[in-house]
Amino acid sequence: MSHFEKTTLNKVIRGAKRATYDKKTVFEILDAGIICHLSYEINGTPFVIPTAYGRVEDTIYVHGSMKSRSLISSLEIPKVCICVTLLDGLVLARSAFHHSANYRSVMVFGGARHVESDEEKNQALYAITENVLQGRWDEVREPNQKELDATKVLAIKIESASAKIRTGAPVDETEDYELDVWAGELPFKSGFDTPISDEKLKNQLEVSPSVRLACSYLK
Amino acid sequence: MSHFEKTTLNKVIRGAKRATYDKKTVFEILDAGIICHLSYEINGTPFVIPTAYGRVEDTIYVHGSMKSRSLISSLEIPKVCICVTLLDGLVLARSAFHHSANYRSVMVFGGARHVESDEEKNQALYAITENVLQGRWDEVREPNQKELDATKVLAIKIESASAKIRTGAPVDETEDYELDVWAGELPFKSGFDTPISDEKLKNQLEVSPSVRLACSYLK
Repeated sequence: MSHFEKTTLNKVIRGAKRATYDKKTVFEILDAGIICHLSYEINGTPFVIPTAYGRVEDTIYVHGSMKSRSLISSLEIPKVCICVTLLDGLVLARSAFHHSANYRSVMVFGGARHVESDEEKNQALYAITENVLQGRWDEVREPNQKELDATKVLAIKIESASAKIRTGAPVDETEDYELDVWAGELPFKSGFDTPISDEKLKNQLEVSPSVRLACSYLK
Repeated sequence: MSHFEKTTLNKVIRGAKRATYDKKTVFEILDAGIICHLSYEINGTPFVIPTAYGRVEDTIYVHGSMKSRSLISSLEIPKVCICVTLLDGLVLARSAFHHSANYRSVMVFGGARHVESDEEKNQALYAITENVLQGRWDEVREPNQKELDATKVLAIKIESASAKIRTGAPVDETEDYELDVWAGELPFKSGFDTPISDEKLKNQLEVSPSVRLACSYLK
């Protein structure tokens, strides 16, 4: 299946022309992010927190402390929602009303499953680490049993998802094009800056390949 | 009151040493963001979407179309949750387990109120526009009655809030400092890039002061 089924859960109502349910697009946006926002609930109140994540096919992994309230609460409801947002720029129109943003965002729904096996846990931590910084996993000491036991991992199978994308120039009211107002796009860029070596670094080690790679492009 | 009261709702349990309830700190992080993530719920399922916002004292304003499902749903529950996250860098430790991030984040809870008066609506749209791009409001055409009537604005009074901040170097296990692994911080920067003038721009207008100002610093 190349698309997520459009249901009442994931159907984009406002700005429907910006919506897509294409799996490839959804996955590309997920893979381009570093931090997701995970929404769960406690006693009827919605909560949202930022967290690292990793994707393996149609599963998103998140992790935290064994006692993490957000993870425990996520397991207690049928579905959580995860959002990844990439801001690409401001869209500056001639009227306040037509201001907008260029962005790529994904909204995912799925039930959270507690990952019990060390093998899948390790795979999940690999996926999370690699999503944050490609190539890092192989450079560092892998989790030992004590660390695995202290880490709670949730697997959220993507049951439903949609993406929303806006690109391009502002769209103004016909008469407003006559106004003496600068209008256009203000691109928003993000990326990594010069690494700061740990003061306790041994033998003046050079930065590792994963860090060099990350500094060479904008994520 | 200079602090938000610590309650079961906003008390940070994991990483409590990184938490603060100081109003000034909470407001500074809110004011430094461009996009928040708003969490609401529909039929027991939590939803989270990215949206622009503005703060006036202890009220956060968000807006959208009059028929926006997220705004309508936010009005139907006692409290929504809003999160603003600023990623400042990756914390690259010698073990996978001790990897972390430097960040500033805020979690806010409050009931959403539908803003009915044109006066408050206009103030809210001013606050939202100015939070996205300081100085922009005075450069553009203000909303007319038709546009105000088409815009739904919610006011979320901050009833409870907490901030979480991590800074600095990785903290590794004592024995891991002997490993030949580069460790340190990888700063994450974001900001505005060269503006792109709208193709339909009149008379080759120069970029306006708000845009020049935004390009001169990183937000």
